Amino acid sequence: MSYIAPVKDMLFVMKELADLDSIAAMPGYEDGSYDTAQAVVEEAARFCGEVVAPLNVTGDRNPSTWANGVVTTTPGFKDAFRQFAEGGWQGVMHPSEFGGQGLPKVIATPCIEMLNAANLSFALCPLLTDGAIEALLTAGTDEQKARYLPKFIEGEWTGTMNLTEPQAGSDLAQVRTRAVPQGDGTYKVFGTKIFITYGEHDMAENIVHLVLARTPDAPEGVKGISLFIVPKFLVNEDGSLGERNDVHCVSIEHKLGIKASPTAVLQFGDHGGAIGYVVGEENRGLEYMFIMMNAARFAVGMQGIAVAERAYQQAVAYAKDRVQSRPVDGSAKEPVSIIHHPDVRRMLSTMRAFTEGARALAYVAASHSDLAHGHADEDTRKSHQAIYEYLVPIIKGFSTEMSVDVASIGVQVHGGMGFIEETGAVQHFRDARILPIYEGTTAIQANDLVGRKTVRDGGKAAQALLAQIDQTIAALTEVDGQAFKSMHRHLSAGSLSLARAIEFVIAKVKSDPNAVFAGSVPYLRLAGTVLCGWQMARAMLASHALLREDERFHTAKIATVEFYAEHILSHAPGIEASIVSAKGKEGVLALSEDQF
Amino acid sequence: MSYIAPVKDMLFVMKELADLDSIAAMPGYEDGSYDTAQAVVEEAARFCGEVVAPLNVTGDRNPSTWANGVVTTTPGFKDAFRQFAEGGWQGVMHPSEFGGQGLPKVIATPCIEMLNAANLSFALCPLLTDGAIEALLTAGTDEQKARYLPKFIEGEWTGTMNLTEPQAGSDLAQVRTRAVPQGDGTYKVFGTKIFITYGEHDMAENIVHLVLARTPDAPEGVKGISLFIVPKFLVNEDGSLGERNDVHCVSIEHKLGIKASPTAVLQFGDHGGAIGYVVGEENRGLEYMFIMMNAARFAVGMQGIAVAERAYQQAVAYAKDRVQSRPVDGSAKEPVSIIHHPDVRRMLSTMRAFTEGARALAYVAASHSDLAHGHADEDTRKSHQAIYEYLVPIIKGFSTEMSVDVASIGVQVHGGMGFIEETGAVQHFRDARILPIYEGTTAIQANDLVGRKTVRDGGKAAQALLAQIDQTIAALTEVDGQAFKSMHRHLSAGSLSLARAIEFVIAKVKSDPNAVFAGSVPYLRLAGTVLCGWQMARAMLASHALLREDERFHTAKIATVEFYAEHILSHAPGIEASIVSAKGKEGVLALSEDQF
Repeated sequence: MSYIAPVKDMLFVMKELADLDSIAAMPGYEDGSYDTAQAVVEEAARFCGEVVAPLNVTGDRNPSTWANGVVTTTPGFKDAFRQFAEGGWQGVMHPSEFGGQGLPKVIATPCIEMLNAANLSFALCPLLTDGAIEALLTAGTDEQKARYLPKFIEGEWTGTMNLTEPQAGSDLAQVRTRAVPQGDGTYKVFGTKIFITYGEHDMAENIVHLVLARTPDAPEGVKGISLFIVPKFLVNEDGSLGERNDVHCVSIEHKLGIKASPTAVLQFGDHGGAIGYVVGEENRGLEYMFIMMNAARFAVGMQGIAVAERAYQQAVAYAKDRVQSRPVDGSAKEPVSIIHHPDVRRMLSTMRAFTEGARALAYVAASHSDLAHGHADEDTRKSHQAIYEYLVPIIKGFSTEMSVDVASIGVQVHGGMGFIEETGAVQHFRDARILPIYEGTTAIQANDLVGRKTVRDGGKAAQALLAQIDQTIAALTEVDGQAFKSMHRHLSAGSLSLARAIEFVIAKVKSDPNAVFAGSVPYLRLAGTVLCGWQMARAMLASHALLREDERFHTAKIATVEFYAEHILSHAPGIEASIVSAKGKEGVLALSEDQF
Repeated sequence: MSYIAPVKDMLFVMKELADLDSIAAMPGYEDGSYDTAQAVVEEAARFCGEVVAPLNVTGDRNPSTWANGVVTTTPGFKDAFRQFAEGGWQGVMHPSEFGGQGLPKVIATPCIEMLNAANLSFALCPLLTDGAIEALLTAGTDEQKARYLPKFIEGEWTGTMNLTEPQAGSDLAQVRTRAVPQGDGTYKVFGTKIFITYGEHDMAENIVHLVLARTPDAPEGVKGISLFIVPKFLVNEDGSLGERNDVHCVSIEHKLGIKASPTAVLQFGDHGGAIGYVVGEENRGLEYMFIMMNAARFAVGMQGIAVAERAYQQAVAYAKDRVQSRPVDGSAKEPVSIIHHPDVRRMLSTMRAFTEGARALAYVAASHSDLAHGHADEDTRKSHQAIYEYLVPIIKGFSTEMSVDVASIGVQVHGGMGFIEETGAVQHFRDARILPIYEGTTAIQANDLVGRKTVRDGGKAAQALLAQIDQTIAALTEVDGQAFKSMHRHLSAGSLSLARAIEFVIAKVKSDPNAVFAGSVPYLRLAGTVLCGWQMARAMLASHALLREDERFHTAKIATVEFYAEHILSHAPGIEASIVSAKGKEGVLALSEDQF
């Protein structure tokens, strides 16, 4: 099953919703013109469709393997990664001074989507390298930047994030890996890290691990964690590779999905100590790691959108091909392809509406990130940054949760054939299931949304978004037609629900934290439902204005938006009920442990 | 991971909600007393927990295998099936004149749940045999009954349902398998059947296939389908096994889940013709098959409840064991087991509320079936039958859809460990995914709910249920307390939503069938949400009355019901919106095929 990137929708969202033109008008972003964007997206679509997508099934059937500490990736991955590197794809959004293309995030984001839609397992390697680049850009010394960033951006070396230990999953306070200073500015690192994506592989000549560890005199808890660079091969002064470092892959996991992506257990220091270099200052590791994580969380949200799109395309292809049963309205006497059956349409429209809505919100978030970096005015930069940060946990949580549902619907469209592995629909279902878990579970995202993103600024970022939604609601009243009326009704109700939920969260977080955190995932779901719905409403208005330019595209967009309003956004008040009625000690925590 | 049957909840539902005492009071049902029920359920719990449950993981890791037409089941299955047969478990609900125990369906139902919770793959074999028994009881000749039923009930032979062909999945009008009369009362059967569960295996000495096929002069479409008995080994006059029949398993499928259950491709008649015997009359095959299917659909609904319960138990065990992070309310300075975190509680409570709600509705449906068979008054029998038939597609569709969600939440509770195959949580997620597909997809159930079950009797059965819900709503006002108020509010809103949806379906089905069938799955989901909620409300009232008898059990029930009201039933109005706003030609069918 091939992957055809939805280039038209991507460019529409970038231009009409994510304000590409304003970004390209900022100093330093001149390369971000629509023409550049179009050229980059089209070339990425070609590369991902032709080179990377065909390896998706291959990777599922021939996962990466481990033997004697060596991981061999799926046949074809090494060559595809070489082409990826040569095409400059690792560097799209990274600074030109280190060899990148320095394009805005709003252009890099569709590229990330396409690579992941083509092949989630493959795309994870560059995704982690992106995170390592972000961390070093922010906190690395000039020498570290000069040494590692060009190699990352050329695709010669790849990066990893080493957080998790057997006893320390979401709770990084429990990290036990030790880093002992050697007196020469280096450290020796000892410990075990698990769930390390691409922690060992054969696609690049070196792997640079970014590792959370504690120095001997570090304070307890998260305030005593430092971040270290631990390369697989030490790097000589001249940049050439030196000795093998004391970090070894002792096994890889047997997983439900993303099987081609090796998930490593890494052992540091079993043979004298792995040599590491501190990033930034000691004890500020968590802060730096959050830079990587925020970049990675946004990217994992994109993975959700990507796999949803891929599952949608596969389901559409099957629905057009599979002939079964006569139409319910008696319009034909012979069986028709199942795309003509209303419930199959409902399923496909659900998949599509979720995917397009989440895509729109994510690209708009990327645009806020660009404005936060490049706008001339500091206050404007800050307010865009606050909105971006509010959106990241929503994009991560909502897009990944919906991707599991969308992939599940994709299986359902296939009927009995869907359950057979050879059909391929279940690969997306299996692959998607990790997305709401890694880089912070949905609960972790929801806690972040409540604590750091809603309560800390007293709801300011959230209120700014609600005010923008009100403008869209007003604009909807100015267009005639059932679809616009319907969206107006459901967006009005949804934004009121979201406003009340925000109010509840802020009012109760101190007096009844258990109640608020019992409703935090529903709050995230509500925010995602309404904010994606808002972007769909904006899309509908844009499509209305552009209708004559491309009637086929824009009528489909308006119909998809109407479907979103009536089948997805309509659930907002029901989700609100779960949030504002959530109770702590009298609710979810009322039962004693043994009553479960 | 062990399985401990929720015997207390089962007996509570049977006695307090499913009116076990009234059933036991009917002539012919004297064996269905509470004491018998308790003894049977407890013994089934022991057998399923000790013998069958430990083979669940084994079956996933060592699926049934095929070689040269022979299927070898998972090690241990053959012996467990012998114990199952010897224990008399195949005969629980079948007539004593053929060796069964003749117990009411309301007692057999928890037994079915337990067997499936213990091991979905294993339980499928008896499930299909149950269907074959039902079909022969209804349509078989006395000779056929005498020949096959005792063997089925003893567990010496097993049964299969042969409907699907490569070109005929849900659309049985397309069945092409031929049955040619031989002039001696027998037929020769030729054709290919796919997706035949336990179509070949080594657990019983004979396999009796019930096969849909066409005679040479049969009318086109579903009116020309007949049902045939095609045994793997022919049966001699004295009941001993004779020659091998010309039906052969040419392969088994490689599936996402239920891997121990062999899904066979069966080839009939490649070596001269498989000898078959018509069941009942020619061309009435579909009608008879529906008997099997209705029994099987109810049972597949039970599979959903079963796997949801199993996933819940596994998640609870993990949540009690896994220590991670301090409580959000600051009540402890050290990390606690994750069951103390509000979002984990929310997840576990969601799993539990769905499972208990669906269990209650299913057992109540079983009770209606018993009353439909055994009540002294014909009109009463008919009205119970109508309600049972209305409920079957809901139990099948709703319980299986929720089981996928519940199993997915179960994975989520495990965090990163959930994605690792060895943990075991994903087996339930993989296994559950077939349930909304086989024995009729959720769309097929929904079409049945709309067409045969709602529209055909002008909404009479549905209205009867709504009237009963009103009584429960009235009873809720008579009890003080937040939980009862909350349920009153959400059940009132939910039943109004359901009433409006029923009205919409009946009013529009002729004028705009596409709109109605675009909303048919949401209608099924709404009906399931509200009807399970209604049973939960009844449970809450019963628990209130019985509170002092078992405070631990009944306070947990009331809390779970309140959670159901606020987190699940609260979504009813949102689901209604999808139904009543569904549009056909201007909605889901508005786009041309190439706009997808």
